[in-house]
Amino acid sequence: MIETEVSEKVKKLKSAAVKLGTLSAQIKNTALEAMAKALDENRKTILSANAVDLEEGQKKGLSQALLDRLMLNDQRIDGMIEGLKMVKSLPDPVGEVLAEWKRPNGLKIKKVRVPLGAIGIIYEARPNVTVDSVSLSLKAGNSIILRGGTDAINSNIALAIVISEAAYAAGIPKGAIQLIEDTSRETVEELMAAREYLDVLIPRGGKSLIKAVVEKAKVPTIETGEGNCHAYVEKTADLKMAVEIVYNAKVSRPSVCNAIETLLVDEAIAAKFLPRIKEKLDSAKVELRGCEKTRTILPSIQLATEDDWKTEYLALVLAIKVVSGIEEAIAHINKYSTKHSETIITKDRKAAEKFQAEIDAAAVYVNASTRFTDGYEFGFGAEIGISTQKLHARGPLGLNELTSYKYLVEGKGQVRV
Amino acid sequence: MIETEVSEKVKKLKSAAVKLGTLSAQIKNTALEAMAKALDENRKTILSANAVDLEEGQKKGLSQALLDRLMLNDQRIDGMIEGLKMVKSLPDPVGEVLAEWKRPNGLKIKKVRVPLGAIGIIYEARPNVTVDSVSLSLKAGNSIILRGGTDAINSNIALAIVISEAAYAAGIPKGAIQLIEDTSRETVEELMAAREYLDVLIPRGGKSLIKAVVEKAKVPTIETGEGNCHAYVEKTADLKMAVEIVYNAKVSRPSVCNAIETLLVDEAIAAKFLPRIKEKLDSAKVELRGCEKTRTILPSIQLATEDDWKTEYLALVLAIKVVSGIEEAIAHINKYSTKHSETIITKDRKAAEKFQAEIDAAAVYVNASTRFTDGYEFGFGAEIGISTQKLHARGPLGLNELTSYKYLVEGKGQVRV
Repeated sequence: MIETEVSEKVKKLKSAAVKLGTLSAQIKNTALEAMAKALDENRKTILSANAVDLEEGQKKGLSQALLDRLMLNDQRIDGMIEGLKMVKSLPDPVGEVLAEWKRPNGLKIKKVRVPLGAIGIIYEARPNVTVDSVSLSLKAGNSIILRGGTDAINSNIALAIVISEAAYAAGIPKGAIQLIEDTSRETVEELMAAREYLDVLIPRGGKSLIKAVVEKAKVPTIETGEGNCHAYVEKTADLKMAVEIVYNAKVSRPSVCNAIETLLVDEAIAAKFLPRIKEKLDSAKVELRGCEKTRTILPSIQLATEDDWKTEYLALVLAIKVVSGIEEAIAHINKYSTKHSETIITKDRKAAEKFQAEIDAAAVYVNASTRFTDGYEFGFGAEIGISTQKLHARGPLGLNELTSYKYLVEGKGQVRV
Repeated sequence: MIETEVSEKVKKLKSAAVKLGTLSAQIKNTALEAMAKALDENRKTILSANAVDLEEGQKKGLSQALLDRLMLNDQRIDGMIEGLKMVKSLPDPVGEVLAEWKRPNGLKIKKVRVPLGAIGIIYEARPNVTVDSVSLSLKAGNSIILRGGTDAINSNIALAIVISEAAYAAGIPKGAIQLIEDTSRETVEELMAAREYLDVLIPRGGKSLIKAVVEKAKVPTIETGEGNCHAYVEKTADLKMAVEIVYNAKVSRPSVCNAIETLLVDEAIAAKFLPRIKEKLDSAKVELRGCEKTRTILPSIQLATEDDWKTEYLALVLAIKVVSGIEEAIAHINKYSTKHSETIITKDRKAAEKFQAEIDAAAVYVNASTRFTDGYEFGFGAEIGISTQKLHARGPLGLNELTSYKYLVEGKGQVRV
């Protein structure tokens, strides 16, 4: 077999993972501190590498939004440094005894949290993902290989060199942090096939990247990020509260996965609620698209089509459907949602319980904004993404979600009859 | 899109899963009891369907071992009935509160165990897998689609009809149990692609089936079954205990995944231990293959090659390597093992701890046989296989491992700032 950049790096990754998995919290924390210090001391190097990416990006005609995601400045470097310190402050998940029991034959079984091993991350433009992903992986005892996008390659190389040198000097096994410099399509393909060396592959980025990775990879993957989320205003809802929640869930940051895309309104309160929410959303210039019933109340808005129910707009657009009651609301959500975050606004305890029981999603809210589905907001300290699949981990992926477990079994010579 | 048997059945499966997920333990237990009764009352139908499979199998020239796996009789039906009753007796995992906390903003977050949803199982000749898989899936609130092998198709159809009719009559939502009758290669391909409808796909069977499924499936999979397991006799080991454990781990059931394939012996005790273990293994006609050092002590045995270290024999063959100490033993195991089950025989506490910390496997034993890696032996009551991957679940897959979780978040109008 021909050695490539990827094949060489994943092998190193795997052998580093074994040592890294047994490191003490103290060494890992010292390394995180050293990485923070190194970022601070190497601002110039990082910013000048970033300047090259920005210049290239402008030449290539990247959109302003993309250039903004790509751009680093002192404030953003401060953010990365803060992130490293915060991960340092989190408890080390490795070694936690999850369960412990004794069998009638005297065998003692202990279920202990261990690192996943070697993690691969495939991502797009934002260079801060490089630092965030490394810090969470290391703290959970995992080695990590990064395949960032072409547009950020100079920034990513600079960041990876700075933090990995600091980490290795502080006792992290050499090879535990790898960045793929070749950003051709082939290196993504190679990572997806590296089942022998990688324990998990996490795509972070747009829908098409995620879909391609989860469908094609031979390595186990965690699907993240796509959020076609809903708010359902039930007929007993406090309408003032409903206006606030819907507005927040749509407007506070429309480009993220935990923002809502469709509003479902009980027909019993539609005539009263829809004009109120329209007025509020108009103030933020949200484009509304409604079903036929919605349009009898709000005739000025565009008709929603089947496509609208399926779409994660990631923009100031909201689809609205009037439903006959909670059954229809639940059926609509379970049909169209991406199982991310869903909320009901209601004063009826039974409706709330039914909604939480029957909605199949990572986070099901009662009387709160879907925007809280986030590692920080959940109290995990940090996250590497939001899982929308049911295998392994669901919702925010914090340190615990970057671990596995093993069984330690102790005997006195027991054999199986 | 053209409707096929698989596409039609996976759709029904998904809609049944939503209802099944909210059923009480009582209804599920009544259904399991009814299924057991139905098996008992329909022995004739089942056995005559099985007779057709056996006759076809003989015509096709299936091996005696395969025909034996395929064969049903009253005793084996009793076994399935016992299995159903045992699963009935297990606690319902669904609804368990895994964690609960309150955020500074007043949001109450509850992490609750929920079913995985819709499960697919792809398996080979043994018809009892049909009943085992259905019972575990149902108890954990999951709907299930079964794709058994061609050789057992008549038995599987008979079993699936008997148990699903009993289950539906007892209140399990119609469609929750599906058996694919078309056993062509295409139906496996279709299942592997049904990401929209299936939450997990579990291959149960031979190495090549498992490899094909985990590598090609778009649906998340759990890799099961392959076990290249080792016993390491450390220099302080009680040699009598070591003989018993090695003999049990190799000979008690050589065809299963938790049997050992390679024995590692510390060079300090090799001259003393190897003749003793050879004598014991000779009594069971175990073929031994050793490294050069082993052959200086046991000159009559065959030389082991690189292939031997990699092979899961599933037969009365054992590879033997003399190692310089625990470092070499751990390195050998981490290089060649399938991360299933590994054991050290030692009196040295530090050696035991080092082995358990550094060996990367689902179950790491001290002074016990690897044969205990099993849902029943671990106290899970039952299992659907042994996971050798690190994502989602590791080791025996019992009821808990057939579940996911969701976050129920309750607020009083909180919005994100």
